Amino acid sequence: MAGNIESPLLIRNENGFSPSDEDQYDVPSNRIHSNGDSIYDVNNGFGSNHQILEGQGTPYHAITRRHKQYKTWELNYQEAAIYLQEGENNDKYSTHPRDFNALPAYKIAHKKIFYALDLFAALLVMGLAACERPAVPFLTLPVGVHGSLELFGLLILALELGIRMKWLGFRTFIKHKRTLIKSCTLIIVFIETIVVIIRQHNHFRVTRSLRPLFLIDTYYCRGVRRTFRQILQSMPPIIDMLLLLLFFMLIFSILGFYLFSGIHGDAYFATLQDSFISLFVLLTTANYPDVMMPAYASSRYYSIFYIIYLSLELYFIMNLFLAVVYDTFSNLEKTKVKKLFFHKRLGCQHAFRLLVTKEDNKSIKLKHFLGMMKHLRPKKSRRDGYLVFKMLNMGTSGALTLEEFHKIYEAIDLQWMLKSDENIIWSSHFKYPFNRIFRCIHSFVKWKWFKRFIYFAIASNFLIILVETIQISVTIEADRHKITDRENWASVASTVYVCIYIVEAILKILGKGPAVYFTSGWDLFDFVVTGTSVIGLLGEFFDDSFYFIIVLRPFKLLRLFKVKERYRDVLGTLFVLFTRLISLAIVIILVYYFFAIIGMEMFLHTNLRNCCKNTSVEAYYKYSNDSTNQMYYYLNNFDNILESGVTLFELTVVNNWFIIMEGYAHHIGEWSRVYFMLFYIVMMVVMNIVVAFILEQFLFRMQYNRKMEVKDIEGKVLIKN
Amino acid sequence: MAGNIESPLLIRNENGFSPSDEDQYDVPSNRIHSNGDSIYDVNNGFGSNHQILEGQGTPYHAITRRHKQYKTWELNYQEAAIYLQEGENNDKYSTHPRDFNALPAYKIAHKKIFYALDLFAALLVMGLAACERPAVPFLTLPVGVHGSLELFGLLILALELGIRMKWLGFRTFIKHKRTLIKSCTLIIVFIETIVVIIRQHNHFRVTRSLRPLFLIDTYYCRGVRRTFRQILQSMPPIIDMLLLLLFFMLIFSILGFYLFSGIHGDAYFATLQDSFISLFVLLTTANYPDVMMPAYASSRYYSIFYIIYLSLELYFIMNLFLAVVYDTFSNLEKTKVKKLFFHKRLGCQHAFRLLVTKEDNKSIKLKHFLGMMKHLRPKKSRRDGYLVFKMLNMGTSGALTLEEFHKIYEAIDLQWMLKSDENIIWSSHFKYPFNRIFRCIHSFVKWKWFKRFIYFAIASNFLIILVETIQISVTIEADRHKITDRENWASVASTVYVCIYIVEAILKILGKGPAVYFTSGWDLFDFVVTGTSVIGLLGEFFDDSFYFIIVLRPFKLLRLFKVKERYRDVLGTLFVLFTRLISLAIVIILVYYFFAIIGMEMFLHTNLRNCCKNTSVEAYYKYSNDSTNQMYYYLNNFDNILESGVTLFELTVVNNWFIIMEGYAHHIGEWSRVYFMLFYIVMMVVMNIVVAFILEQFLFRMQYNRKMEVKDIEGKVLIKN
Repeated sequence: MAGNIESPLLIRNENGFSPSDEDQYDVPSNRIHSNGDSIYDVNNGFGSNHQILEGQGTPYHAITRRHKQYKTWELNYQEAAIYLQEGENNDKYSTHPRDFNALPAYKIAHKKIFYALDLFAALLVMGLAACERPAVPFLTLPVGVHGSLELFGLLILALELGIRMKWLGFRTFIKHKRTLIKSCTLIIVFIETIVVIIRQHNHFRVTRSLRPLFLIDTYYCRGVRRTFRQILQSMPPIIDMLLLLLFFMLIFSILGFYLFSGIHGDAYFATLQDSFISLFVLLTTANYPDVMMPAYASSRYYSIFYIIYLSLELYFIMNLFLAVVYDTFSNLEKTKVKKLFFHKRLGCQHAFRLLVTKEDNKSIKLKHFLGMMKHLRPKKSRRDGYLVFKMLNMGTSGALTLEEFHKIYEAIDLQWMLKSDENIIWSSHFKYPFNRIFRCIHSFVKWKWFKRFIYFAIASNFLIILVETIQISVTIEADRHKITDRENWASVASTVYVCIYIVEAILKILGKGPAVYFTSGWDLFDFVVTGTSVIGLLGEFFDDSFYFIIVLRPFKLLRLFKVKERYRDVLGTLFVLFTRLISLAIVIILVYYFFAIIGMEMFLHTNLRNCCKNTSVEAYYKYSNDSTNQMYYYLNNFDNILESGVTLFELTVVNNWFIIMEGYAHHIGEWSRVYFMLFYIVMMVVMNIVVAFILEQFLFRMQYNRKMEVKDIEGKVLIKN
Repeated sequence: MAGNIESPLLIRNENGFSPSDEDQYDVPSNRIHSNGDSIYDVNNGFGSNHQILEGQGTPYHAITRRHKQYKTWELNYQEAAIYLQEGENNDKYSTHPRDFNALPAYKIAHKKIFYALDLFAALLVMGLAACERPAVPFLTLPVGVHGSLELFGLLILALELGIRMKWLGFRTFIKHKRTLIKSCTLIIVFIETIVVIIRQHNHFRVTRSLRPLFLIDTYYCRGVRRTFRQILQSMPPIIDMLLLLLFFMLIFSILGFYLFSGIHGDAYFATLQDSFISLFVLLTTANYPDVMMPAYASSRYYSIFYIIYLSLELYFIMNLFLAVVYDTFSNLEKTKVKKLFFHKRLGCQHAFRLLVTKEDNKSIKLKHFLGMMKHLRPKKSRRDGYLVFKMLNMGTSGALTLEEFHKIYEAIDLQWMLKSDENIIWSSHFKYPFNRIFRCIHSFVKWKWFKRFIYFAIASNFLIILVETIQISVTIEADRHKITDRENWASVASTVYVCIYIVEAILKILGKGPAVYFTSGWDLFDFVVTGTSVIGLLGEFFDDSFYFIIVLRPFKLLRLFKVKERYRDVLGTLFVLFTRLISLAIVIILVYYFFAIIGMEMFLHTNLRNCCKNTSVEAYYKYSNDSTNQMYYYLNNFDNILESGVTLFELTVVNNWFIIMEGYAHHIGEWSRVYFMLFYIVMMVVMNIVVAFILEQFLFRMQYNRKMEVKDIEGKVLIKN
């Protein structure tokens, strides 16, 4: 939607001033005259250094003065831009570059390319988990190679830390907790890597599980950092509720032990420890009717014990747990938003102090504003800076007050287009016959009957796919051994439909213009779906080994969601929340990584085939060359990072997780239960935070929408009256 | 806490009026002069009937006038009281008794005894499910007996309906939806009962599942009615989300069918129907790793399908579902509170109109207020009525304005005590040495070190029980066959602790007085726990068959919760929410009843022992005389109402529910899956509402507490300034 303004006339000289150099001789309030009446206290920053230079009695004639002023202003612009950037990135102001000499280091560390390098190094070091022993088969690397790669990554990270130390100074560096933890981890991992390279052998390296710390610290993962911080901050009430949960569990396990240890054949409550483990698993419902059945067979009334336990722990306390998590989480969210707001304001105030002149310390002139903008957004044109200034400047004074300057963050990243742009589509500048044609296409694409036809096409396509699949299903059922007969699947209908979709996509691209089409969420979604349909169709026609793309066909049905309002809302909200959901997903992946590394180190090469003889989970681990009647649970191992991930996902889903736990407890030792139980508790907390997050965000959106509507109605009523 | 005032002097004649008959001759605004300037329109009620009497030209001299006025006022009092009662009970004003003749019927129908009779009949009819075929063994009754009992119950219900028709009038009776549904159900059930009695045989009676309707309609179940209404009202958005869920399920089942139907040994996706059922069960996670394992064994990358499906359906849409339910539920709650508020106000306005005089239609005199109170709260004394009046009357006019009268519901059920009561404890009226002694006990009980000692006792007792149980557990493990050796369990320590608790309870009763002790939630809880401890101890000493009470011992540990603030808050909130939680529990029980009846009629006497040969669930239903290695799933049947309840609870907990479903699907027929899937969906909705309810209520309380604290702090700050 971004259009650029052609006419330079737009920069009018409305308030009797121009962006020219008429204020060449004005003096920044804080530099030359350190006894100036600045209202803000200069407590840090590299101004002080400069003031000493000033005090050395340099000659005071016009040309050097002008030159010096220019240099002073440049420094002020730079520092103001840094303050605003710190406000934007939520960096602490105590990590502000300590003096003029630290500035180059600061500037390097805050370059995009350096951010990217940092991220790359962190990802490289994390990714090595797939190549080290136990490696994913096709990614296996020799010890020397992955050791060197790790060393390379760690060196980049160390470089980043070194630069940071340069501009922070040693004292602040030590005080900044996150940096300190990162440094310590780096040193440990570094030593271990060198040991690995020297010995050419991977020892027991649980410290690898700390690698996510490097990723969390990168610039691009600030959302992840925030989510982690929120999780850590909501721990105290969560721990209280966990204790309540465990306390009840303990009481019930004592009770269960007394009640059921006498029942013959009830192995679940044989000892107090068994009793506790059974009830822990019962909290996850994973062993539910099974754990009750022996007692239930002995007396029907024993079911009361389980009903009370589950009603209390699962349905009451767990929901209470969610309520506490939700409450804490949404409060933290509110506090965070407030804090960010004030942090930004503080940044504005610091910057403001640096941009006012000694003569007028209540407002910023355009010239100084543009000077600062050049450092804050180097890529933006002078015109963009001027427009931001005009937008902020509500009064007629031609200078920004502090109050106006506070709003800079709202205006700084706006994109501007000419007012007449609204009716202009991308094809307006084409030559005569073409601009008419493209405008027709544009109108046609926006025509409601065109949209309806597309919806109808999708719906009918859905029915045809369904009918087709049912037919295939019936055929297979009738003749169980002719499954490979896939030729018929590419029906004429699906070809027709794919053609319709292609025509639609082409019309839309031509009508709306590629720039608009490929930046709209829904259109992009359409395009991807249509693209996969095309690939699927090609797959059907050409290559038999290509057949698996056929299964992507039903995905075009997802477009049906655009028909109904509520679903559009839901998916619209999904788009809005995308970045935050991604943060949450990354947090989960990092937790997985942590547990996967530990799991791999602890349970490496455990073969669970035919394990657990004479226990209740024996059947799950049975192994034979015959594929029927196998439960394949021995596949849930920690043999490499990807398989560990799948195993951990199974543990996250919770159902039957105890079977995996029992397998390892029998094969490795009872203590391994701690790993599984800890993982369950951690994931329970994380999953509750996921639920809390989704609840919070969607409730906010729904209530927001409703309130807007209500206001609308009230507005209408007011007009009526 | 309720104290009664002794002195009649409290009724002072402050504002120059007394509750005597000085206004004997005043005229109600609406009766005698129908053209009076009443601001409220008389649209129904039995005034109209009376006005006709008025118009018939009765002689107009003082005595009859006074008598008539008295009668008119009495009628007005009665009707005003009825309006206020309707406001209180949230009865529709359209069900107001239509005229003077309907009044006796109305009064009977709104007597406590009649409410109780109605409840009794509804419970009786519902309870018969335990005695009819298939009956709970020891409750079985002959067909004639339970048929007659049912007829008896239904007759009472019919009587109630008849009386309701009498005061509602036929037209309103038909229009009132709830009453109409109840009548129809009653007729159907009535006919069926007569058929049963005549044939002396229970036929296929699914209509029994409608019996909860009778219970829902009773006066005491208005909370349940409200919850049901809320559930029904939140259906539309819930259904939208369910469709979304099912739509994705369908897409994925098509996809799954194409992907996995070719894998040898993967029975989960053999046909499209299998595929759909597998994914439906997978939504509940009940078959999770199992359903993935055959595909996972064939290629590790197939796990991506399951991870995407579960992330999308389980972690995203289901949480969204909760968000939608929560949003709808909390909005309905707000609307309901608003509606109730305005309903009550309307009741007040109706009543107000009836209590003002023709001369002064802006305010109610004390005399008329007390006249109304006599009907509204027959058990309250005249003094209580006067106190309510004084409390409401903010001005000095000595008469209630409408604005003041609106607050009657807040004041009407207050209990009053003398101001000097605060320092008086129950023993203050005792004779000399005793009142001193009891006051000492009172202070001792309130002493903080006494409380701390008790907490210490409980905590140490907990440790001793734990250690003792661990010892027993170890002993049993070492010597597996000496389980019946229970003599040692009654240790000296437990006797000492029980004695401490008894002394504490006695001291508290003596100190606080029985009235205070037995009405405080925490004290009552203490008492019950101590009581069970005593019974447990006695059981240990005397009777061996009594031993099962020993297991109640650990329950005294629950008292530990009083120590920490957050837990006290949680349990305090629990006490506050108790009635609403009970309503929810009753709703769940009624849903269970509904499904249990249908289940019993459909699956009666299904023997699942050794069923499902050659399927994946065969092992669960294995039956032999040997108790080891049995899974006992054949016990999950619908043989009587209690066992059906347990089976349905297992289905509610969801884990392994599909094994029960598979059993019936194989034994009875594929269509029986509909029953189980429907039950799952219904319980999912109900459980989501339970979660929404607990979330809503606890969040409200937590936020309320926090806000109060904040205000407190602000208040203090204000005082400081």
